[in-house]
Amino acid sequence: MKDNISKSIRSNFQVSYQYDVFFTKHLFSFDNLILKEFFHSQTEYQFNKKVLVVIDQGFLNHQPNLIESIHQYFASKIEAVQLVEEFIVLPGGEVSKNQIEDWEMVVSAINKYGIDRHSYIMVIGGGAILDMVGYAASVSHRGIRLIRIPTTVLSQNDSGVGVKNSINYYGKKNFLGTFAPPVAVFNDSSFLVSLEDRDWRSGMAEAIKVSLIKDKDFFNWIELNVSKLTKRELDAMEYLVFECARLHMDHIKNGDPFEFGSSRPLDFGHWFAHKLEYVSNFSIRHGEAVAIGMALDSIYSFLSGNLKEPELNRILKLLKGLGFTLNHPMLQLNGKTQLAIALQEFQEHLGGKLTLLMLDGIGIPKEIYTIDHSLLETAFEQLVRHN
Amino acid sequence: MKDNISKSIRSNFQVSYQYDVFFTKHLFSFDNLILKEFFHSQTEYQFNKKVLVVIDQGFLNHQPNLIESIHQYFASKIEAVQLVEEFIVLPGGEVSKNQIEDWEMVVSAINKYGIDRHSYIMVIGGGAILDMVGYAASVSHRGIRLIRIPTTVLSQNDSGVGVKNSINYYGKKNFLGTFAPPVAVFNDSSFLVSLEDRDWRSGMAEAIKVSLIKDKDFFNWIELNVSKLTKRELDAMEYLVFECARLHMDHIKNGDPFEFGSSRPLDFGHWFAHKLEYVSNFSIRHGEAVAIGMALDSIYSFLSGNLKEPELNRILKLLKGLGFTLNHPMLQLNGKTQLAIALQEFQEHLGGKLTLLMLDGIGIPKEIYTIDHSLLETAFEQLVRHN
Repeated sequence: MKDNISKSIRSNFQVSYQYDVFFTKHLFSFDNLILKEFFHSQTEYQFNKKVLVVIDQGFLNHQPNLIESIHQYFASKIEAVQLVEEFIVLPGGEVSKNQIEDWEMVVSAINKYGIDRHSYIMVIGGGAILDMVGYAASVSHRGIRLIRIPTTVLSQNDSGVGVKNSINYYGKKNFLGTFAPPVAVFNDSSFLVSLEDRDWRSGMAEAIKVSLIKDKDFFNWIELNVSKLTKRELDAMEYLVFECARLHMDHIKNGDPFEFGSSRPLDFGHWFAHKLEYVSNFSIRHGEAVAIGMALDSIYSFLSGNLKEPELNRILKLLKGLGFTLNHPMLQLNGKTQLAIALQEFQEHLGGKLTLLMLDGIGIPKEIYTIDHSLLETAFEQLVRHN
Repeated sequence: MKDNISKSIRSNFQVSYQYDVFFTKHLFSFDNLILKEFFHSQTEYQFNKKVLVVIDQGFLNHQPNLIESIHQYFASKIEAVQLVEEFIVLPGGEVSKNQIEDWEMVVSAINKYGIDRHSYIMVIGGGAILDMVGYAASVSHRGIRLIRIPTTVLSQNDSGVGVKNSINYYGKKNFLGTFAPPVAVFNDSSFLVSLEDRDWRSGMAEAIKVSLIKDKDFFNWIELNVSKLTKRELDAMEYLVFECARLHMDHIKNGDPFEFGSSRPLDFGHWFAHKLEYVSNFSIRHGEAVAIGMALDSIYSFLSGNLKEPELNRILKLLKGLGFTLNHPMLQLNGKTQLAIALQEFQEHLGGKLTLLMLDGIGIPKEIYTIDHSLLETAFEQLVRHN
């Protein structure tokens, strides 16, 4: 080759992903065949496939018979795969994403039980443990098949049906992670019955978010069903979870699933919410923080001449009707300072170019690239006068 | 929802990948504009993009002016991105994949210097450090853009142009890793001049492999150029690297890039090679082990009535002509036992179903699913009589 004369070869290819999210009830009861059918549809019989189960301790406390039920279900229904006898039980909640030891326990079990690329990890729990175990699965042997069984409203309608997983590192949320779709998700509505009220409620924030930026009909439906939802009627929650999951999945598959670009239009209400969670040391639930973030962004959307006042009032009324507190005590301390810092950090997170999603109306999103700081402070002042 | 009546939503989507592998010489000399042009083609100016450089200490020892050259090149040629002042220098070779501390140093630098998803890691070195740094990049912020600058024959023609990265864990090769294509690869042939003879030679094993299973013309060319290649003529090596990289990239893009299926037809000669590397505690180079593995599989292909004797002889003659030792002292110790263990482990690695690639002729692969153990032992006995 002559100096400085260069050749090149281009590689370009596409990778296809497919997974089903099942909505069911009593997943491990003997007359529910959905899990059995899933494994039989997956199987190439030549392989010795195994299933390693990881369970959220917090969930297990409410379901003392869960481990026994799973053993019995596999023993009587499933020939195609071999259940690993020992289950891994780990604490759930955000703490599970902070502790590298928990991640290490999952990777170590993958090694100990010889879980290979044809085998499965089945994780049962809330969004945090799904994220953590998903990350362990996705990097072990460059990717073990992941089955998610989300047990909270938030994980059933949002994080658990998506393609991301992660842990926190260096005190930074989701610093390590991958984009790695599961092979299947099983949303069992009966698991939602044992949730605390706070978790039942806070999971609905993502449904409101997705309705606000994507689907006015869904927003109308939530408004009409506030009473059923606050009374914890399961049929109403099943509809809410299904619609929210559907809209979330549509967004992923029709957008930029692995986020190679810079736009992240599912982040409505989230830039301030992330900060609130951190400042409160996660005593505020994600959904509670998102409700506050959405209220703030909706007020800003109104003040900047986009969202109309009657629509703003409907949004704030819905959030309060479902029981969200918009004027959190955290905001009284040094809220405006936190607001400025949150905006700065979010801009850095996006690589220096600010993109925020605001509303032109219910169901009508509007991307903005600059923000009027004094208007934002006014919005904040109006926010803290609520409730 | 009625008990046991289930609904489901299917998610299916495709993710597109594209990257260029550039073949050049004197990448950082002022009259070589290829790197400058790459960065300018990539840039959206709104983002504050950074480049963090990681260099293989072993390579740097041969190129004492490298760091200064890179600084000068970026200072005078590249406005679109900001070079991080401090370079990370780490030991290369297999050791870099065994030490989680080295991986941690890269992740920690990503954190320290605020390298985000719009920024780059540029790694310069042999295949092992490319694998390790690639893994760190692929999981930090769920994926930072990776630029590979391979400095060995093996990494320029094989691992460095592909889509895999990994580290070893629990003493197991590539236990942790991801499929994550780079954004670009720069193969600089001038970097090959300082290689030790062993590394110059062993990198050619993958070229022979890919010629045997994919391209008889390429095999013929290597045969005709044995003398130039052993005399270290750079033009001949440039052709070998280019053709091998091209065939390897074709295989990835036209096959199953992220290996969701079970077939791995680039593994010819590798099942026994992996074992040899481990048993020798990596004193045997990868290519040296692959040469032995290919000789064994070629003899087996002949004994089982597929490969013709004249073609077998051409293969063995080529390997010996390039300087490979087929009868390694390791084989004399307990070679047949290692052979049986290697086969067993490879079958487990594949999830229980054995698939081996053998030859029907030069350039004509043949998959087999069972092996005749006594014939394999005979092949082994013939192998150890060589050289």
